Amino acid sequence: MPAREEPYTIAWDAETDCIVYIDQTLLPDRYEQMRCATVDDLARAIGRLEIRGAPALGIAGAMGVALAAVRSTEKDLGRFLDDIGRAAALLRSTRPTAVNLAWGIDRVKRKVAMAASVAEAKALAVAEAIAVAEEDELTCRRLGAFGEELFPTDCTVLTHCNAGALACRCWGTALGAIRSAVAAGKSVRVIACETRPLNQGSRLTCWELARDGIDVTLIPDSSAAYLMRKGKIDLVVVGADRITKDAVFNKIGTYMHAVAARHHGIPFYVAAPVSTFDLGRTEKDITVEERDRFELAYCGDRQLVPDDVKVLNYAFDATPLDLVDAIVTEIGVLRPPYAESFRLVKEREA
Amino acid sequence: MPAREEPYTIAWDAETDCIVYIDQTLLPDRYEQMRCATVDDLARAIGRLEIRGAPALGIAGAMGVALAAVRSTEKDLGRFLDDIGRAAALLRSTRPTAVNLAWGIDRVKRKVAMAASVAEAKALAVAEAIAVAEEDELTCRRLGAFGEELFPTDCTVLTHCNAGALACRCWGTALGAIRSAVAAGKSVRVIACETRPLNQGSRLTCWELARDGIDVTLIPDSSAAYLMRKGKIDLVVVGADRITKDAVFNKIGTYMHAVAARHHGIPFYVAAPVSTFDLGRTEKDITVEERDRFELAYCGDRQLVPDDVKVLNYAFDATPLDLVDAIVTEIGVLRPPYAESFRLVKEREA
Repeated sequence: MPAREEPYTIAWDAETDCIVYIDQTLLPDRYEQMRCATVDDLARAIGRLEIRGAPALGIAGAMGVALAAVRSTEKDLGRFLDDIGRAAALLRSTRPTAVNLAWGIDRVKRKVAMAASVAEAKALAVAEAIAVAEEDELTCRRLGAFGEELFPTDCTVLTHCNAGALACRCWGTALGAIRSAVAAGKSVRVIACETRPLNQGSRLTCWELARDGIDVTLIPDSSAAYLMRKGKIDLVVVGADRITKDAVFNKIGTYMHAVAARHHGIPFYVAAPVSTFDLGRTEKDITVEERDRFELAYCGDRQLVPDDVKVLNYAFDATPLDLVDAIVTEIGVLRPPYAESFRLVKEREA
Repeated sequence: MPAREEPYTIAWDAETDCIVYIDQTLLPDRYEQMRCATVDDLARAIGRLEIRGAPALGIAGAMGVALAAVRSTEKDLGRFLDDIGRAAALLRSTRPTAVNLAWGIDRVKRKVAMAASVAEAKALAVAEAIAVAEEDELTCRRLGAFGEELFPTDCTVLTHCNAGALACRCWGTALGAIRSAVAAGKSVRVIACETRPLNQGSRLTCWELARDGIDVTLIPDSSAAYLMRKGKIDLVVVGADRITKDAVFNKIGTYMHAVAARHHGIPFYVAAPVSTFDLGRTEKDITVEERDRFELAYCGDRQLVPDDVKVLNYAFDATPLDLVDAIVTEIGVLRPPYAESFRLVKEREA
């Protein structure tokens, strides 16, 4: 791999024992690294979507527990573990639908629980959080390599939201597969849906693809189905925030693309690491996060709807697996029947 | 009908021979009447969507020709008609997809062509333009009465963009049917899609329904299909900008709702006056207006995508008639097979 010019989306700063991250709410105006020294700061940054994207949230969860560990002043292991537990609960509550966050938290918590002393627990927590981040890059590269095999040599791909370098340590999941296809010499044009209400498609996906010289065109979410009808889309690839036994939870709008893709006979693919799977649960068990009315009611400072109008702002939707043609992971491409192909994931988890 | 408290969306001011209209780009912040004294001003107001909505554009087209007539200083009837022709061409070019605009222009042009003198032509033009506006209100009331019969006594209706009082002289087409259902004592809840990129759903539909005390909830366009999946939508009703032999042209996003409604077995209705029909043409004959990248690339003053990212901004899409369960007009509810039910429209046009 060539020397890296760009900072990672999220990383551990060993000198100060802090998290450093690209604040995604400032993009594309400003590409700035911020610093989190406390769990409270991190919870706020996640809630405000300064840090977002399923794999990046996994890293944030892991690093959040490490942050709680290094900041704890408790000498007693039991009370130290209470601190860790409180931090984990706070972080977990910030985004109820994204499972990677909980996965990252739990992974570091399990390590910490093995420690015989507070000092050992702190060292283990930091090491494990860094390992989670490093593995994420390898995971995305592997996933990308599997994903690019699904791309024709010349194609136009629709994507929604940002499942890119900015949603991970680097490279990306859905955009990772696109990057891998481009790296393999394929001719790929990307149609990026703006992704209302927070425009992660416009602000993040367009920005990062344009930066890397990948052909990208922005559309409103509502024109995707029409472009399919006009024969302008060859495949759809999106990320995921949680995959249950029966459904893929991802950014609101994903389900509509899946329905439209099926209507037009266009393949619909999901790209997500194994850490996104939650195969012990079904769609009905999952809380879909509802976000503040402000996100829809305002455009910048301008108020778009009167205060007495209700706003329903689901952050995610659920796409039943029968609309998903394949799920690309770092351990291979999973295809229907999923009851069978999910066994691979369960073996990995076990 | 009770005395009217609100000004009409667009009207002729006989004292000054000008068009007065509600500037829809200022809503919901400011509800202000503006004035157009020349055809150039009117063309600019239409291009900027200060005046928008298919029936309102029909009135604007008609009044635009009247404006050209009263402002012309030509004494010679031939040269006067040249003025009218130039004005008609300019107005027609402002919105290529909306057929009502051309319909209104042609209706007044036909009257003017009957005149034996410039003075008579001016009087006929103004009288016809006013007649077009007055008929629009009757049309919407009749259409509304037919439309409300499609509504269950208790229902949640999804609508897109603004086919409301603000898109017509008053009352509305899709929202006219909703108003008629509410007036008939039915319990109707409206789900309004924000309608990217210009947010006519947020700014206009939510505003006018809330003003009239009708239950309305705002959602992003991309969550409509998910709400259908959750069983929260009973029917869809939208307006139209042009209805050809085979397709309904309407605000971008309409097609996606039609596909999703069919997928979920939910009725999909179009509400439009006879002036919206263009049965001599088919989908492939129609130019779909592409609008400026600015509408998607900025949120207020904030730039959302870099300048080197392409933007594809179709103003409309086309929904094939096989996805449309009924078309509500002022002459009744048209149902498939449309080749047969469209005969009623052709008789009316003949």
